[in-house]
Amino acid sequence: MSAARVSIVTLGVDDLARAQKFYEAMGWKDHSDPKESVRFLQGNNIVLGLYGREDLAKDANAEPGKAGFSGVTLAVNLESEETVDVFYQRAIDAGAHPQKPPEKAFWGGYSGYFRDLDGHYWEIAYNPYFALDESGNLNLGA
Amino acid sequence: MSAARVSIVTLGVDDLARAQKFYEAMGWKDHSDPKESVRFLQGNNIVLGLYGREDLAKDANAEPGKAGFSGVTLAVNLESEETVDVFYQRAIDAGAHPQKPPEKAFWGGYSGYFRDLDGHYWEIAYNPYFALDESGNLNLGA
Repeated sequence: MSAARVSIVTLGVDDLARAQKFYEAMGWKDHSDPKESVRFLQGNNIVLGLYGREDLAKDANAEPGKAGFSGVTLAVNLESEETVDVFYQRAIDAGAHPQKPPEKAFWGGYSGYFRDLDGHYWEIAYNPYFALDESGNLNLGA
Repeated sequence: MSAARVSIVTLGVDDLARAQKFYEAMGWKDHSDPKESVRFLQGNNIVLGLYGREDLAKDANAEPGKAGFSGVTLAVNLESEETVDVFYQRAIDAGAHPQKPPEKAFWGGYSGYFRDLDGHYWEIAYNPYFALDESGNLNLGA
């Protein structure tokens, strides 16, 4: 079994309840123990973790990060340009910042970026060269 | 079909070839077009993207990030404490920074953090309360 996987992407956030509400609006399903100070939300292929920014830094033996671009983006690949528009609008309606509204991309697809309520960057994309499997997962081949 | 998914985690890096070599050593399989300035590596459940830090920021309409903690961590959940030790050591051998060597965690598991060659934080963990499916994916339930 390969260890080349990402089981959980954890985002440092300023307000756990606010972040949880945003991601539930985006379709993630909460599976958290309400007594805990961390939230775990199940998605198609991965778990999203939400944790206080300072708690997460402390857990990683790190100094808490500044606001601004983190050097990490999370991409959601969808089935069509139309679904990109729908999903992007859903994020904006839930309070996300419209970083780069969806547009034709130089690489032949269609893509936009929003920032979530804590400044994390999500790309919403349709890539005609990347097929999604029946579960919606991106698999480039064996 | 739910859009609650992460198709690609893209990391901004300073040296594409160096980053690619590191992640290949960790078991990720390159599926890139060598003519392109972005790298895509397939993992179990997700694709890892590697892109020049400034290129990635530009693509996201963002200012390039500073070094330091980004507020994002990527967790690899494994099957046992022993596999955590093995995989952590593999990362260190490939040049990662030993941010927090694996140890018993307050939440009942076993976990460590390394920083990759560009400062991105990975947690390697065994969580006895989280079952992995036969593909090694974490699924908290429907």
